[in-house]
Order: sequence, then C-alpha cells, then structure tokens
Amino acid sequence: MSAPENPGPELSGKPLEALCLGIAGLGLMGGAAAMALRRAFGGRRGRILACDTGRGVLDSALGKGVIDEGFDSPEQMLPRCDLVFLCLNPSTLLRFLEKWMGAFKQGALITDMAGIKGSIVEAVEKGLREDLDFIPGHPMAGAEGGGFANAEKCSFLGKNYILTPLKRNRPENLEFLKSLIRRMGFGRITETTAAEHDRKIAFTSQLCHVIAAALIDCEGDREITRFGGGSFEDLTRIAMLNAPMWTELFIENKECLLERIDQFEGSLEALKKLIRAGAAEELRERLGRVRDRRAAMA
Amino acid sequence: MSAPENPGPELSGKPLEALCLGIAGLGLMGGAAAMALRRAFGGRRGRILACDTGRGVLDSALGKGVIDEGFDSPEQMLPRCDLVFLCLNPSTLLRFLEKWMGAFKQGALITDMAGIKGSIVEAVEKGLREDLDFIPGHPMAGAEGGGFANAEKCSFLGKNYILTPLKRNRPENLEFLKSLIRRMGFGRITETTAAEHDRKIAFTSQLCHVIAAALIDCEGDREITRFGGGSFEDLTRIAMLNAPMWTELFIENKECLLERIDQFEGSLEALKKLIRAGAAEELRERLGRVRDRRAAMA
Repeated sequence: MSAPENPGPELSGKPLEALCLGIAGLGLMGGAAAMALRRAFGGRRGRILACDTGRGVLDSALGKGVIDEGFDSPEQMLPRCDLVFLCLNPSTLLRFLEKWMGAFKQGALITDMAGIKGSIVEAVEKGLREDLDFIPGHPMAGAEGGGFANAEKCSFLGKNYILTPLKRNRPENLEFLKSLIRRMGFGRITETTAAEHDRKIAFTSQLCHVIAAALIDCEGDREITRFGGGSFEDLTRIAMLNAPMWTELFIENKECLLERIDQFEGSLEALKKLIRAGAAEELRERLGRVRDRRAAMA
Repeated sequence: MSAPENPGPELSGKPLEALCLGIAGLGLMGGAAAMALRRAFGGRRGRILACDTGRGVLDSALGKGVIDEGFDSPEQMLPRCDLVFLCLNPSTLLRFLEKWMGAFKQGALITDMAGIKGSIVEAVEKGLREDLDFIPGHPMAGAEGGGFANAEKCSFLGKNYILTPLKRNRPENLEFLKSLIRRMGFGRITETTAAEHDRKIAFTSQLCHVIAAALIDCEGDREITRFGGGSFEDLTRIAMLNAPMWTELFIENKECLLERIDQFEGSLEALKKLIRAGAAEELRERLGRVRDRRAAMA
C-alpha cells in the first residue's frame, strides 16, 4: 500500500513520514494503534510519541520500538504533535480535553477511539480551540483482557472503523485520516452521526457485552466448560471485559442501551412463549427466519 | 495415535480394523463422524456403512471415500454392523429405534449423538433388546449451516464429549467407545447422568442458541454488520441454526431450558437496574466478578 512511487497521504502539506504523531493513553487500543502506526510508517521517518501515567507501559513500548518517546504527562508531548490519538476512557478523555486544550500544537488534528460518541462530540463542539480540528472515531476492534500487555492480540486487519465527522472538520483532514486508518489495516470505514453511532453500537457492542455478562452472572459452576461445545465459549469470550471502561460505556449510553435490552427481552419472551407452549411449527418458522436474516447479514 | 505396535481397542474380541461400523443419518454430525472414523481406521481394513434417505448424500460420501457402502434403508445395513452410530434428530431417532429394533445385529453396540438425553435414555431403558448395548452420547461439536455438505467444517479436535452410560452397559463396551471417541479426535470425555446432561446442556448450548436467535430476531437492519467489532459476530454465529433440530431440542428439554432462560433474565434485569440507576460502583464490581468468574472457567 505504501509503494515508493505512491507519495502517501499528507497532513497540512506534510507527508506521513515527516509527521509527529501523539498517542494519549497506551492501553489496549492506544498500544494497538501505536503498533499499527509504526507499521504504517514502514521504514520511513516520522515520530510516534506517547503519554501514559504508567511508566512501565511507556518503557515496554519504548523497548519494543513501538514508540520513539514516552511522557508521563501530555504537557511536553502535545505541543509537538501534528496528529493526536486520544485512546482514553470517555470520562478521562473529557477531563483530558478540558485540562490540556491549551497545550495542543497550533492547527493540530485530533481524533479519539472511544466507544461512545454523543458526549464527546458535544464537548468538542462546545470547547474545541478554533485552530484545532477534531474528528471523532471508533475502531471496531478489541481483545480479551485489556491494557498494553494485550495490545498485540488486538488486530485491526479488515476491521470496521466508524467516523462521526463534524460540520467544522476540514475535508482534507478527513481524507487524510481515512487514508491513515486504511494504512493501519482497517477495512470498511463508515461515516455517520454521533447519535446514529450510539444507537447502533448499543446493539452490536454494548448489548452483546451485557448479555455475555448476564450469562456468566447466572451460572456458578466453574466446571461448566466440560459441557461447552463452542456456543457458550463464543457467547462469553467478551465477558472477560475491562469492567471500568464498560461501566462507563453502559451508563454513558444508557438511553440507547436500555431500549436495546428491552427489544432483546421482547424477542426472548416471544421465543420463550413458543417453547413453553410447545408450538413447534411457529418456533421452527421463527428460527428459520432468524437463520435467513443472519445469513443475509454475513 | 494408532501406531502399528498399538493393537488398539477391541469390541467383542474384534480389533477395530475388523469391525463393521454403521452410521444412521449422514447429516452434519453423521458425516463428520464418518470422516473421523475413516481417519481413526487409518490405512487399516474395517468397513463404514451408512444409511440415509437422501441418495445424493450417500453418493457424495461414497465419492469422497468416507463410507464404503450406502443404503437408503437401514434394513440391509443394521444386521451387518458391530457398532451403530445413530446421528438423527431426537424424534427421528426414537421412531428409528422402535421401527428397526429387530434388525440390529446380535450383541451390537449402539450409541447416539443427540443433543438431549432424557427421552432417549427412557426409550432405551424400556425398549432395548436384551442382547444389545446402548451407550447414549453427545459430541459437543457443530458447524454453521448443517447437513453433510458442511460436515468437513465440523471439527472434533479437542472437543468435549458427554456420555450418559446406563447401569446395564457392559464396562468393556464403555471402555471401547471411549477409546474410539478419543481416536476420533475428541478431548475431554465426561460421564454423567441424562438428567444432569440435560440441565447443563440447557445452559451451555440451548440457552446460547435461544439468545443468539433473540438477538437477530430483534434487529432488522441488514447493514448492522458495518457496526460490528467481533462481539456481535461471536454472539450470533450460531443463529445460522438448523431450525427443525433446534425446535425439537428446545421443546424436548423445555423444563430445563425455561428455568435457564428465567435465571438469565434475572441476571439481565439486575444489570439493567444498575445501568438505569447509573450505579457505577456496583456495576463495576459486578462486571469485575463476571470477568474473574469467566477467566476461572477458561
């Protein structure tokens, strides 16, 4: 994708290899982003800076050559970065923006990776410095566990990426970011509104995590995996979740999420009724429709 | 596993390679069993017979060399088989046993692969011929789609196998069957009662399929996978289910299944309450316990 004859994307007239990139938060996503950006740079120049409150994480990333410089505070890092990835939990991200708004480099491009977009877009529309540009984003990737230690397991290859651009975004910045996202390995990029993102994500991501958690919550037998044949394992892999982050996401998006839980409970009730009634023909038909619908989604 | 110096398991004094094996029903599981048995025989002798009402399926299996002879009725096959695998939906299986009880070879060993054991054990205990032995079983394996066409995708490697032996089973037959199951690639074999099997399976298998079906049932947007990041895909892969078979399993085991759905709904309600109340600390704690419990199950 980055053949020598292809000049690659440019940000504010600078080619990719001349840019200084900053990553705020070297957790699972920040770590995976750093690794993907390192690969996107290839053998070229360009610098990747990162800040994190955990010194061990910075040392580990420096040791792996994934970042070029590590900072325990954004203060020294932000003024140097042409592009900043905010890889923080929503509440930390909002506090970060408020506290460090003055520190970003003149004209910098900022993006984030949080799993909820409504409150972030709201904060950015209210408080972003005039000279800055902020394109909210959400990479649809993850891995069990969490933290930088699991970042290598978090593959971006062919994954979905959602962007919820703002009216004020500069078109050339949006094009640059999309080009960079593709270089990081992602597949389909979808542009939508923050509201639509939060509604859809409440279903594909948050509801699924609530269900997985409820499944584990209602079963005490640790030996239950003896009776597993794949479906239980599939449905509960994501129950090994980052509890503080998902707590934030669930509560922050609770309006959409509660509606989705209600819809799901409605379908579950309907299936339960057919099972209880022994209504074989209706159940077979309903399951057949489910099968066809899922196949059409694939 | 079948080195020449290892004589391998014996059934009624006959070594594996001298046995005639019969498979009733060449669907997903019957087909996968035939393939695994062919591999278990290795380059040795031994015959694999199969009966199925679909001539195309038999021709396909013959063409692939997976079976040696195909029959469209069990009448000619059963009298020749030392061991018979019944790979049929529960209701078909019960009718099969009733209709063909007289046709089995004197002293034959029979096993089944149905996903529910209570009604099958009951029928066997009532109606099995004195000279026959029947060891109920349930391989915890599967694949999307179904039928012989998908059998190659159904891997047994390292998978769980549940046996619910009867008091009347001959110990040497049980040992033989377990040895053969391991040769077919399965990992852990668990022996339990039919009642315990049906209770556990209601959770690990049936409840998971009901949940996956409800998830698809409550969402009409075919483009929803644009917003998928893995969890939605994980939770709904099994929604591409064999509707007639799962209808039977759900209804046949409805007492256990309805209890499990209720328990799951209870946990879901509890999580919903915490989300609605914005009870971050309690939610974080509960999700943390879920995470630890799931990790201990792995």
